[in-house]
Amino acid sequence: MKGVGGSIVEKASIAKSAALKLANASTEEKDNALLRIAAAIDEDRGRILAANEKDLEAASKLTREGKMSKALLDRLKLDNVKIDEIVTSVKDVAELEDPVGRTQLALELDKSLELFQVSCPIGVIGAIFESRPDVLVQIAALCLKTGNAVLLKGGSEAHNSNAALFTVVVEASVGGEIPAGWIQLLETREDVNAMLKLNDYIDLLVPRGSEQFVKYIQANTNIMVLGHSEGVCHVYVDRDSDLEMAEAVSYDSKVQYPAVCNAVETLLVDSTIAADFLPRIAEKYQNAGVELRGCPKTLEVLRSTEQLKPASEEDWRSEYNDLIISIKVVDGVDAAIDHINQYGSGHTDAIVTSNKATALKFLRFVDSSSVMHNASTRFSDGFRYGKGAEVGISTYKVHARGPVGLEGLIIYKYLLLGTGQVVARYVGADAKEFTHRELQKQFPL
Amino acid sequence: MKGVGGSIVEKASIAKSAALKLANASTEEKDNALLRIAAAIDEDRGRILAANEKDLEAASKLTREGKMSKALLDRLKLDNVKIDEIVTSVKDVAELEDPVGRTQLALELDKSLELFQVSCPIGVIGAIFESRPDVLVQIAALCLKTGNAVLLKGGSEAHNSNAALFTVVVEASVGGEIPAGWIQLLETREDVNAMLKLNDYIDLLVPRGSEQFVKYIQANTNIMVLGHSEGVCHVYVDRDSDLEMAEAVSYDSKVQYPAVCNAVETLLVDSTIAADFLPRIAEKYQNAGVELRGCPKTLEVLRSTEQLKPASEEDWRSEYNDLIISIKVVDGVDAAIDHINQYGSGHTDAIVTSNKATALKFLRFVDSSSVMHNASTRFSDGFRYGKGAEVGISTYKVHARGPVGLEGLIIYKYLLLGTGQVVARYVGADAKEFTHRELQKQFPL
Repeated sequence: MKGVGGSIVEKASIAKSAALKLANASTEEKDNALLRIAAAIDEDRGRILAANEKDLEAASKLTREGKMSKALLDRLKLDNVKIDEIVTSVKDVAELEDPVGRTQLALELDKSLELFQVSCPIGVIGAIFESRPDVLVQIAALCLKTGNAVLLKGGSEAHNSNAALFTVVVEASVGGEIPAGWIQLLETREDVNAMLKLNDYIDLLVPRGSEQFVKYIQANTNIMVLGHSEGVCHVYVDRDSDLEMAEAVSYDSKVQYPAVCNAVETLLVDSTIAADFLPRIAEKYQNAGVELRGCPKTLEVLRSTEQLKPASEEDWRSEYNDLIISIKVVDGVDAAIDHINQYGSGHTDAIVTSNKATALKFLRFVDSSSVMHNASTRFSDGFRYGKGAEVGISTYKVHARGPVGLEGLIIYKYLLLGTGQVVARYVGADAKEFTHRELQKQFPL
Repeated sequence: MKGVGGSIVEKASIAKSAALKLANASTEEKDNALLRIAAAIDEDRGRILAANEKDLEAASKLTREGKMSKALLDRLKLDNVKIDEIVTSVKDVAELEDPVGRTQLALELDKSLELFQVSCPIGVIGAIFESRPDVLVQIAALCLKTGNAVLLKGGSEAHNSNAALFTVVVEASVGGEIPAGWIQLLETREDVNAMLKLNDYIDLLVPRGSEQFVKYIQANTNIMVLGHSEGVCHVYVDRDSDLEMAEAVSYDSKVQYPAVCNAVETLLVDSTIAADFLPRIAEKYQNAGVELRGCPKTLEVLRSTEQLKPASEEDWRSEYNDLIISIKVVDGVDAAIDHINQYGSGHTDAIVTSNKATALKFLRFVDSSSVMHNASTRFSDGFRYGKGAEVGISTYKVHARGPVGLEGLIIYKYLLLGTGQVVARYVGADAKEFTHRELQKQFPL
């Protein structure tokens, strides 16, 4: 099995060499390789499901012994429907526009001295993920599309599934301009820590997993990480809001899919409308089984509501990922902004208001990757943002922020095309001047 | 003195709060503050030069005792000419276009549900630099222009100069929309290590100093670093090159200014032209006082040349920053590319050739931030690339690569403007479809 076996540094070194070739593969070759991967997964589903069955047996035993959660077991499970989804998602990636090789800027520095800024792959991506084996294929497809080599490390509980999927991907993809070694599978738990120190080989880490998992990675590497550990999102209902709209947005942001990072965790309500709005939304939440945790003012307004708990300081920082919401009454938009910037995670926050000036203030001063006006926080997502694919959501403020598509796996290089120019002619007493004139040209000429 | 005194976490926390305000300062207010800074430095030069004099006295003592290099002493020294340069550079930054608040994308997700990607400051920049006090003003100006707060840590040998410049910058800049606290000076050596752990406050580190200094920072933080530790640059002279042009480019790349990161360190020469080219360039280099270190083939071709040393394996990885060059004879462009990708630092590499296909191969397969065809490596520089200002040169392959201008201090946020939309309407059986139509609109509407 290619890529299985060998030390992590050997694998990383092979990936780095392969990256230099893959960076220059044509769009057609990359897309054809993606379509071959999709077809192979479709055809080899028997082999893949058999491998997954082995993982499920071991995992079920752990679940019975109380050593693995039912949720984890569910994420591990593949079936024909999931395989179909994987096949479709790889085909979808093939359909996307190739982001590599685009001229982002063409600038004449002087006559016959032209600078081109051209998009290119980053190089080697380190992908670390937990349990879900479908993530292996998804990340592999995104890396191949963008011309990046990839080192993959999946969860040990999905060992057999990952090995089977990896083999299918390697066998289907390599050939022509797609170099052997562009994808490498790491298998031991120790590999994770070794990977975090591979600065000389890995240009970007993409972790996928629980909050603790991503936090661990962020804290233990000085390689750039693309990701987010938390989604502590807010909806602020302003005094000037349409309460029906506020109810709809607050409800959707929490209830439509509570397990995800862009679901709301804290509802902020302007004090002047708290008495009107809180009973309405509380009833609606409680009908949907949402547990409410309120600040003192919320408790006072909702004193006749059953099963209402007081919120602790810890609640304002909590990502429940569940049918729980904390509620705080605040004095206006400034207090809401301050609360969000203090307790939020910089992910997604929304205001409901019909006051344009208030909305503008919120949009400008809330320091989050996505800020919404009169829309559910649940919209912050790569597909909804029209990216065609989502590499991840980033709460970092460098490289890529918010929902990240293929652009997160792309960087650029500068190409300067001259006719023998030397810098000595552009300095000193008789210095030539630069023209710095934008050109309507594409590289290569 | 504002910002002097207080713990590092207090200062970082103040900077973070100030950043939220500064991010929304108008272009006019920021540019006016820059012009006030320029004027104040001009007027207060007596105070600044007196402070610098104190640093110079202490440093001269160290130099006499052999504890500080003469070069460091030179970098520390301010005089009226340097002050004039600082004043001009701050005025130049004020003249640049404001990169903040630009709509990078406007996309209709659905009717009355519009997404805007708008450029914004990163937040808090951590700038760490050695000896040169003028760097303090330069980085402060770039951060103010881009709306970023900044924590500055200069070299202890420039303690008095930095404190004086810092005070002038604070007093001149704060007021109106420019919040107190936007700039903070850290003063003790321990502050550097503390700074490297301030992940919750600092979004990006910008180190300026020696190779060892930058390497130390890169290795001891998991905050993103913008910078480069090494510039091991190459010129490859191809078999199909105009030898006169090759001579000019090779000479300029080394001799025009050898102390900088974009100067060439290794000359690669195609074996088929080595006998013609090497004697010419060797003579020219030696006339300029350049020490030559050659591979065995180079030594053979140049056996009649005096003062030629053999190059060791270590030479291929060395950044001399001096009048020294290593020379290697290689078999064609593929061998040149392999050598560069193995030993280079991903900074700047050039080919001299009149063969277009060979040039294209080199431009595509050399994995460096700047790749040149028939031009000196010395062109890779923010000002020459038309950026108006240079934040640094980055050999990282994320965020910003190569010569980095103001864009390196900028990120974006997504703003979604709706009319009450909820995600529940866009999923399931009766799901609405997204339109994903690009709009010709600017935020704010």
